[in-house]
Amino acid sequence: MRRIKTLAVVGVGLIGGSFAQAIKRADAGTTVVGHDRDPRALERAIELGIIDTAAESASDAARQADLVFVAVPVRQIGGVLRDISASLGAEAVVTDAGSTKAEVVRIARDSLKDRFARFVPGHPIAGRESSGVDSAIPDLFRGARVVLTPSPETAPDAIEIVRGCWEAAGARVAQVAPETHDQIFAAVSHLPHLLAFALVSEIAARDNAQDLFGFAAGGFRDFTRIAGSSPEMWRDIALQNRDALLWELDQYGTRLAVFRELIERGDGPALERLMREARGARASWIASTRRSASSE
Amino acid sequence: MRRIKTLAVVGVGLIGGSFAQAIKRADAGTTVVGHDRDPRALERAIELGIIDTAAESASDAARQADLVFVAVPVRQIGGVLRDISASLGAEAVVTDAGSTKAEVVRIARDSLKDRFARFVPGHPIAGRESSGVDSAIPDLFRGARVVLTPSPETAPDAIEIVRGCWEAAGARVAQVAPETHDQIFAAVSHLPHLLAFALVSEIAARDNAQDLFGFAAGGFRDFTRIAGSSPEMWRDIALQNRDALLWELDQYGTRLAVFRELIERGDGPALERLMREARGARASWIASTRRSASSE
Repeated sequence: MRRIKTLAVVGVGLIGGSFAQAIKRADAGTTVVGHDRDPRALERAIELGIIDTAAESASDAARQADLVFVAVPVRQIGGVLRDISASLGAEAVVTDAGSTKAEVVRIARDSLKDRFARFVPGHPIAGRESSGVDSAIPDLFRGARVVLTPSPETAPDAIEIVRGCWEAAGARVAQVAPETHDQIFAAVSHLPHLLAFALVSEIAARDNAQDLFGFAAGGFRDFTRIAGSSPEMWRDIALQNRDALLWELDQYGTRLAVFRELIERGDGPALERLMREARGARASWIASTRRSASSE
Repeated sequence: MRRIKTLAVVGVGLIGGSFAQAIKRADAGTTVVGHDRDPRALERAIELGIIDTAAESASDAARQADLVFVAVPVRQIGGVLRDISASLGAEAVVTDAGSTKAEVVRIARDSLKDRFARFVPGHPIAGRESSGVDSAIPDLFRGARVVLTPSPETAPDAIEIVRGCWEAAGARVAQVAPETHDQIFAAVSHLPHLLAFALVSEIAARDNAQDLFGFAAGGFRDFTRIAGSSPEMWRDIALQNRDALLWELDQYGTRLAVFRELIERGDGPALERLMREARGARASWIASTRRSASSE
């Protein structure tokens, strides 16, 4: 990891706090300055030793920083980038943790203007059931994947600095185009969240909702776990990644119609074949995640 | 629990084996005779002390039994009931563990004829990741719900005998009509299984399936866990509960179309409201399951 003398963290919650802890653990000489809209979060972050000083504004936090980590909800990233744009040092690098990337890149280009080459968009695939700075842990990113989505004009040394930080935090870093990122996550993350919210929404709206929930068991609990996620966050992700998500939703609708047709006409062999292929694909995936986890 | 001198278990797997263990633990005087299409399962069940003797056929197993527990895949229940019908003692009670009930009741009425009043249809809501008699444990049903779906002509004493056994196994017993059972489980179990199989099926069919799975994380793993279930079993459930499942699928499609519409026109407030209601309903349900678990 390249030495980070001063790290600015804008948005001192689970992700921002955990990143700060991981960097401080990798290099005890790093000073962390934090900013958050919520003064109590800043206070707690100082009490917990996660940040060294609190800044009044994002631009104040960014002023002395070698690296600015923007860990706010995805629709607030643009505002933060506009705030810090004028106060960034010549060599300062900026990165983020937003769950969608094409729209963030578009906004960053507008907001940062000639500093856009120092912006390295990122998305750590990590989380916990609980949020907020009190839940931050330095090992949050150990073994997690982090996706960086630089543009052709992004400075190679900026990419290396951000990649080095994530690797020091124990993450496995991948690099893809922003649009590719958004298509991938529409399929494996945004769509499942939408499907889970919709199922709970449908059942909760029924007159016999209490009976239905009363007989729901472990399978339903696991299937709908992601419907326990933050409504603000998932509203924003759905709207920011709208086109890719709608495309996935329509593809899924077509696939579901195939299953429906097989059930309606009672085609057991074809139905079993599709289910068997799905189970096999999932089993291979689970096996591969175990292999990559054990090779770390 | 009413004394069961001889318990016959037809289908000595996870469910049948665990039921036998639970009953033997409640009354060490019970003799268990088992039958299975797979002779190795019978051998293991004897080695493990789960059954006392192995029968050559379901009708042989049933001949001396006070209670016959039919724990075979749902589409094989009819065949077993026809086999045992002539060898049942006058007071013998028969119950099953099938995941759908209306079709089982229809078949039982045809197969058992004048013995139908001694048949108490049942559905234990329990399972483990692993199956087979080697995974059987006497505590499998502790705290689990068991749904009984008797008909108007079912003998009250037969219902009480089966209820007593399940309660001795630690289960909480509910009683509903077979059609109500099937509607409830179409919504909270069969539909989610279908949705999970369809999502994995859709992703596995893509040219970039490896990339997609490569970035899938914990949310995807939980959401699709039930797509790791037995394809034969879920094919049968989908076909046996076809009408209720198709109805649920269509209701779900309508709900999903509402979400789609909100995303397409960028209606953040309405989208967030639906997600927030869903999250709240799920949180209340989770809280209620914790309360009922801790009150046992």
